Amino acid sequence: MERLSQAKMFGGFVETYKHRSKATGTDMTLGLYLPPAASTGQRVPILWWLSGLACTEQNFLTKAGAQRFAAERGIALVVPDTSPRGLDLPGEHDSYDFGSGAGFYIDAMKKPWSEHYRMATYVSEELPSLLRSTKLPLDTRRMSLSGHSMGGHGALVLGLRNPTQYRSISAFAPICHPMETPWGQKAFTGYLGEDRECWSQYDACELMRSREVKTPLLVDQGSADEFLPTQLRPEHLEEAAQDSGTPLTLRYQEGYDHSYYFIATFIGDHFAFHSEHLLS
Amino acid sequence: MERLSQAKMFGGFVETYKHRSKATGTDMTLGLYLPPAASTGQRVPILWWLSGLACTEQNFLTKAGAQRFAAERGIALVVPDTSPRGLDLPGEHDSYDFGSGAGFYIDAMKKPWSEHYRMATYVSEELPSLLRSTKLPLDTRRMSLSGHSMGGHGALVLGLRNPTQYRSISAFAPICHPMETPWGQKAFTGYLGEDRECWSQYDACELMRSREVKTPLLVDQGSADEFLPTQLRPEHLEEAAQDSGTPLTLRYQEGYDHSYYFIATFIGDHFAFHSEHLLS
Repeated sequence: MERLSQAKMFGGFVETYKHRSKATGTDMTLGLYLPPAASTGQRVPILWWLSGLACTEQNFLTKAGAQRFAAERGIALVVPDTSPRGLDLPGEHDSYDFGSGAGFYIDAMKKPWSEHYRMATYVSEELPSLLRSTKLPLDTRRMSLSGHSMGGHGALVLGLRNPTQYRSISAFAPICHPMETPWGQKAFTGYLGEDRECWSQYDACELMRSREVKTPLLVDQGSADEFLPTQLRPEHLEEAAQDSGTPLTLRYQEGYDHSYYFIATFIGDHFAFHSEHLLS
Repeated sequence: MERLSQAKMFGGFVETYKHRSKATGTDMTLGLYLPPAASTGQRVPILWWLSGLACTEQNFLTKAGAQRFAAERGIALVVPDTSPRGLDLPGEHDSYDFGSGAGFYIDAMKKPWSEHYRMATYVSEELPSLLRSTKLPLDTRRMSLSGHSMGGHGALVLGLRNPTQYRSISAFAPICHPMETPWGQKAFTGYLGEDRECWSQYDACELMRSREVKTPLLVDQGSADEFLPTQLRPEHLEEAAQDSGTPLTLRYQEGYDHSYYFIATFIGDHFAFHSEHLLS
């Protein structure tokens, strides 16, 4: 891992790294925040953040105000990019909701995507292993997961698929039922093909119904979110959680939209939630 | 004033406006944060934020994390753009440190800039008057001023030039002595011409030495700021404050750079400082 940048913030450090990924076959960038506690020699737990459509690792680090809480609580932030970069696959850069910036945290099955768009493996297997192999003072036995929109979907899906790896899961305005909504259908068709059984392995509602997961989940959803009527379906997630006995807290936040202003407002609550599980 | 956008944040609202400016002869955009207290019918005091080179009103609103403190303390944020826009004067868009995005909060004297680049009048006269004429619940009798880099220079200069208008002044990594440093010399030559007497009317060190101002000032400067060795000269400001008896607190922050990560770390301190003067 090659460090590209470092800036002091709240007594810790915001850093970006470049590394070669086996999963994607490309160079990948990675954002990191190390809290002041990481400078004392102890290994700190990790909150992973998965970003939404068109984001890089930069959006969350610059806009969410999360470092204040990460510093206070002694939790590191790890922020992957949202897709492989530097490729030029046919149509890869044509739309904001498919291809570059829109990896959807799944392992593609369909060519030409299947060679590189393997973000599920990248985020939940390769990166934890890579972080363990570095000298960074991170405790990969204590990890939780959060994200926004497409990244909220990613947090739910990777958390539900790897229930022993993450202690708690949260999401802001996640795509809860991608099989039934346009962004998800476009991505699943493009990356996975037509097999809906295969789709269901990356759909939070379907995963919740198919396996018993006791990881605590917190979801915040703004009531004025412009994508709520068409893309997100939190009510389906709530039903699936009730039917399956999954411990989900779903909160509707009156008047909030889909932006980082919404995330910044409630990110402190998510730190409080994850801290219960990461710091115990 | 036409509202272009509104998003809920920390119980209040981040808004942007467009309006016609007499001072600049152009349309101007303006950022605003109204804290929850503004919804209760009371008029809230204002912290003005003046941004640095190449910024618009968006940078501070998205990156600094200031709204959390503005909400807690019941203070509005008003964030002007950094120059007129939509013109196409010769050379206006050629460099990041002159012309568009680089108005330097001065009233230009030299053609063709003097017709439009009148940011001192715009910020310290036209905008307060415009805000008074709206129905926005703002108390323009209680105003303080802060800013970053070029905007830190703007805060110091406009605060020192209008000592009865602002109750307190703060700055992050301001250009303290622009007459003696490259960014300032380029801007002053371009906007004002060769008359150094005219320059001194927009130089914080010179203003401090030439008039007795008792407005309290707080300046934070990162020790790892990449522009500290060449552009900023906080030590000259400290000397001028000592010689003139101006109440300046200058703090060097070990290891911090020139970025919004630095601002976000200490913006809470600046709210504590301004609150003493705005809320009493």
